[in-house]
Amino acid sequence: MELHPIWNDYPQLQPELTQTLELMEKSIQLKNEPVKKALLEMIGAGGKLLRPAYQLLFSQFGPEKDRQKAIALAAAIEMLHTATLIHDDIVDDASLRRNLPTIRAEFDNNTAVYAGDYLFVTCFKLMSDYTGSLRSLQKNAVSMEKILSGELGQMEDHYNLAITVDEYLANISGKTAELFALSCSAGAFESGTSQLFAKNVSDIGHNIGMAFQIVDDILDYTQPRAEIGKPVLKDVRQGIYTLPLIYALQTEVKQLTPLLEKKELMTEDDTQKVYQLVNELDGVNKAQQLANRYTKKALKRIDNLPNNPENTKIILQQLTQTLLTRTN
Amino acid sequence: MELHPIWNDYPQLQPELTQTLELMEKSIQLKNEPVKKALLEMIGAGGKLLRPAYQLLFSQFGPEKDRQKAIALAAAIEMLHTATLIHDDIVDDASLRRNLPTIRAEFDNNTAVYAGDYLFVTCFKLMSDYTGSLRSLQKNAVSMEKILSGELGQMEDHYNLAITVDEYLANISGKTAELFALSCSAGAFESGTSQLFAKNVSDIGHNIGMAFQIVDDILDYTQPRAEIGKPVLKDVRQGIYTLPLIYALQTEVKQLTPLLEKKELMTEDDTQKVYQLVNELDGVNKAQQLANRYTKKALKRIDNLPNNPENTKIILQQLTQTLLTRTN
Repeated sequence: MELHPIWNDYPQLQPELTQTLELMEKSIQLKNEPVKKALLEMIGAGGKLLRPAYQLLFSQFGPEKDRQKAIALAAAIEMLHTATLIHDDIVDDASLRRNLPTIRAEFDNNTAVYAGDYLFVTCFKLMSDYTGSLRSLQKNAVSMEKILSGELGQMEDHYNLAITVDEYLANISGKTAELFALSCSAGAFESGTSQLFAKNVSDIGHNIGMAFQIVDDILDYTQPRAEIGKPVLKDVRQGIYTLPLIYALQTEVKQLTPLLEKKELMTEDDTQKVYQLVNELDGVNKAQQLANRYTKKALKRIDNLPNNPENTKIILQQLTQTLLTRTN
Repeated sequence: MELHPIWNDYPQLQPELTQTLELMEKSIQLKNEPVKKALLEMIGAGGKLLRPAYQLLFSQFGPEKDRQKAIALAAAIEMLHTATLIHDDIVDDASLRRNLPTIRAEFDNNTAVYAGDYLFVTCFKLMSDYTGSLRSLQKNAVSMEKILSGELGQMEDHYNLAITVDEYLANISGKTAELFALSCSAGAFESGTSQLFAKNVSDIGHNIGMAFQIVDDILDYTQPRAEIGKPVLKDVRQGIYTLPLIYALQTEVKQLTPLLEKKELMTEDDTQKVYQLVNELDGVNKAQQLANRYTKKALKRIDNLPNNPENTKIILQQLTQTLLTRTN
C-alpha cells in the first residue's frame, strides 16, 4: 500500500494518511471474499486522499488533540468518497478507475450497487463510533443529502447544449465542493473550534473543491488518455458538458453543435475535433482562470487563519496551490 | 395516501402509521422534480409498513412517551427499507413494485442508484435529528452492515443448485430478519427499556422476520401473478433459489435440475413446471412448517412480555399470526 506521489513533498502528513488507509482497510469486513478483495484493492490503489488530508490539517486548529478520532473521521470521509465513486462508475458506465478495473467492470453493476452501499454504511459506522456528537452526524447527513440531490440534479442537465456556467457551478458545488467543505469543517469542528471558525473553514473547503473540480474537468481537455487513467471525453459522449466546453460553446456554437448532437454515436474523430475546438476557442484558458479565482479566494482565507499550529497554514497553502497546477 | 388494507383491523395503529408516511414524504427534498414525484408515489403506494408498525408497538414498552421521536425513527426505518428496495430492483432487473413501475424502469438504473442513496442518507438524517443517543446510530449502522454483507453474500449463491437450507437461512437472516430485529429493538431501546429487554425484543423481531421472508418466498409458488404484483418465478430464472425449491431439490433432484440449468433461458413453460414440481414435491408445505416454527417462537416470547401497556401484546400476537397466513 503506497501513498499517492503527491504526498512525497509532505513527509509530515504521511504517517496519519497511512493510518487512515489502514483503518479503512480494517473496516471492510465482508464474507464475500472477491468483493472484499476488490474493495481493498481500490482503497490501496493510491487515491489522492485529499479529503482526509484537508480534514486532518484543519483538525490541528482546535484544542482537542485526539488523533485517533481525527484519523477515524478522515477514514469515514474517504469511505464516503469511495462509495460515491463506485456508484458514479455505474452511472458513467466506467471501466477504469485509478488504472484498475472498476467494481462494476470486474463484477457487475449489481455488485457495485451493494458494494457502494456497504461503504456508505461503513462511513456512518466509523462516524458514530468515533464522533463525539450527534451534531457532526447531522452535518454529515445534510452534506450527503446535498451531494446526492446535486447528482440527481445534474442528471437533468445531460445533453443540455444550453447549460450555463451558473448551472455548471451549481452542479459541481453539490457534486464535489460540498464534500471538500464537509471534510474541512468537520476536521475543525470535531477538534473543538467554534462554530464560526468551522463555518469559515467550510467556505475555504468549498472554494478548494470548486477549483479542484474545474481543474479535473480541464484535464479531460489537456491530458492524453494514458496519464489520467480514463478514456478521453467519454463524459461528452454521455452528455456531460463541463466548463471548458461550456465556455467554448459560448464563443462559437456552430462547429460544436453538430458534433455534440450525435450524442453517444460520436466517433473518436468527433471527440478529437471537440477536444481541439475547446482548446482553440479558449475554453480551457477561461476555465483555468476561474479555477485560479477559486484558489485565490481559498488562499486568502487560509492566510487569515491563526499561525498556530506552526506550519499548518503553510502546508495548506502549498497543497492548495499544487492542486491548481496538477496534471493528473 | 392510503394505508395498506392490513391495517383495517388495527384502527388504533392507523394515526401513527399515517404520521410516519407524512414525515417520510416531508423528508424528501429534491430539486429533481420527476425523481421526487416518483419517490413520493412509491412511498404513497401502500407498502405494508410492517417495520415501522413493529417499531411503534415495541416503543410502547419503555417509560419514555415521546411519540414524535418514535414516529421519526419509524419513518427512518421505513426509509432505509425503501432505499434497499430501490437498489434491489436494480439488482433484480425488476419492472414492477407495488403495482407501480420501479424507479429503474420509469427512469433508469442510474437514477435508481442515486435515488436509493438519497433515501439511505435521509434515513440517517432522520435518525441523527431525532435519536437521543449515538448508541442507537451505532446499532443501526451495525445492522445495515449485516444487511449489505448479507446481500453481497447472497450474490455468491446465485445458480447454486447445492445451496443448503442453512445457507438460505443465513442469507435471509441478513437480508430480511436483521431489519425486523432492528426495528423491534430500536423501538424498545429508544423508549427507554433496558438493554436486556431490547435484546429479547431483537430476537422476537428476528423470528418474525425469518417467518416473513419464508412466507414471501412461499407466495412465489402459491400465488398467480396478478395478486402479488410481480412476475412469477423471475427469481428462479435469475438463479435465486428459495426455501420451497431447496426442499423440493432435496426430495427429487432429477426433474428439476435440467430445467434450472437453463438459467435465464428458462421458458414460461419451464418455470410453470418448476412451480408445479415444487408444490408436488412438498417444498411449499415444508417451507410453511418452518415459517410456522419461527412464528411460534416469536409468539411464545411475546407472550412472556409484560401486560402493560394494555393491548400491545395482543396486537403484536394478532399481527404476527396474520403475517403467517397472508396471501400477498
